[in-house]
Amino acid sequence: MTDITNIDIAKATRLLNHGPTTLITSAYAGKTNIMAAAWVCALDFNPPKVTVVIDSKTYTRELMEAAGTFAINLPCVQQIEMVKQVGSISGRDLAGTDKFAEYGIETFAAKAISAPLVKGCVGWLECKIIPEPHTQNTYDLFIAEVVAAHADERVFSDGRWHFEGHDNLRTIHHIAGGVFYATGQQC
Amino acid sequence: MTDITNIDIAKATRLLNHGPTTLITSAYAGKTNIMAAAWVCALDFNPPKVTVVIDSKTYTRELMEAAGTFAINLPCVQQIEMVKQVGSISGRDLAGTDKFAEYGIETFAAKAISAPLVKGCVGWLECKIIPEPHTQNTYDLFIAEVVAAHADERVFSDGRWHFEGHDNLRTIHHIAGGVFYATGQQC
Repeated sequence: MTDITNIDIAKATRLLNHGPTTLITSAYAGKTNIMAAAWVCALDFNPPKVTVVIDSKTYTRELMEAAGTFAINLPCVQQIEMVKQVGSISGRDLAGTDKFAEYGIETFAAKAISAPLVKGCVGWLECKIIPEPHTQNTYDLFIAEVVAAHADERVFSDGRWHFEGHDNLRTIHHIAGGVFYATGQQC
Repeated sequence: MTDITNIDIAKATRLLNHGPTTLITSAYAGKTNIMAAAWVCALDFNPPKVTVVIDSKTYTRELMEAAGTFAINLPCVQQIEMVKQVGSISGRDLAGTDKFAEYGIETFAAKAISAPLVKGCVGWLECKIIPEPHTQNTYDLFIAEVVAAHADERVFSDGRWHFEGHDNLRTIHHIAGGVFYATGQQC
């Protein structure tokens, strides 16, 4: 945890420029959930905004709409199995528990929102939904402002990623059907 | 060119799942342009839809709004220098020529739209804008339906990427300031 640093909010979207797969966490009224999401994208620089696509049937959607906030966590190579696990089941189907307990996923508190942040990830964006009912209801597309951002300074500092020497901390990119590629060589 | 195959439209968004940096091409009334864009994302499966963020000051914006269509081209490692070039100047500032002529960028005809497709890329999505004036004007965010898609079958077939053995054809991911990472190892 000592490697986590706050990021200049004006550079928060740089966490997402390269299109990594994410984990969306949400919390409302004592309930929490986590899901994998690849369709997450930067939208604006400062104040930073993002778009996320969240299916209307998901438990995450229910919690994030109720709370008005959610977190984007950026998992890395050493978390691949956990990412596959949380992407394969709905938190709604876990009677009396949640995915964090079910899979032993440790979290820490966000600065500005209720959603928990996932330990072991390499980047985190705390997001507040900008209500846009038409795009939400028509396209399952949410627009949000990033109100705080953090990163593992071993692989992100001075506003950019640098994965060299940390292969297990490289971000991941979903292809299809549970197959991922790591972020590769600088070119 | 013999390596290019049409893609089942229901799997077109798989070209974008892993968040590659793109080249947006556009054409209207005899004018054409090309720009680099990292903020491009899948939105829906079938019919496939995408989101793209295009600044209101760009020449691309002018042409794509006039035509109602544009193409998303997916460049690869061996095109890095060209991607940097087209991202560093506006086509509006090139008197009497365009970026294709200026940088010797070869193209081929799209199937369903007017925008040219860039030779040497490894994936192409032909897109028709779904008019959403509020999101376009407020956020520079465009929603579009993918009406045709193609890929280089050496690295994409049966609905998924497979870059092994083709390092020069790996897609690229922009970090910041002209620094890119290639799509890396499967994990």
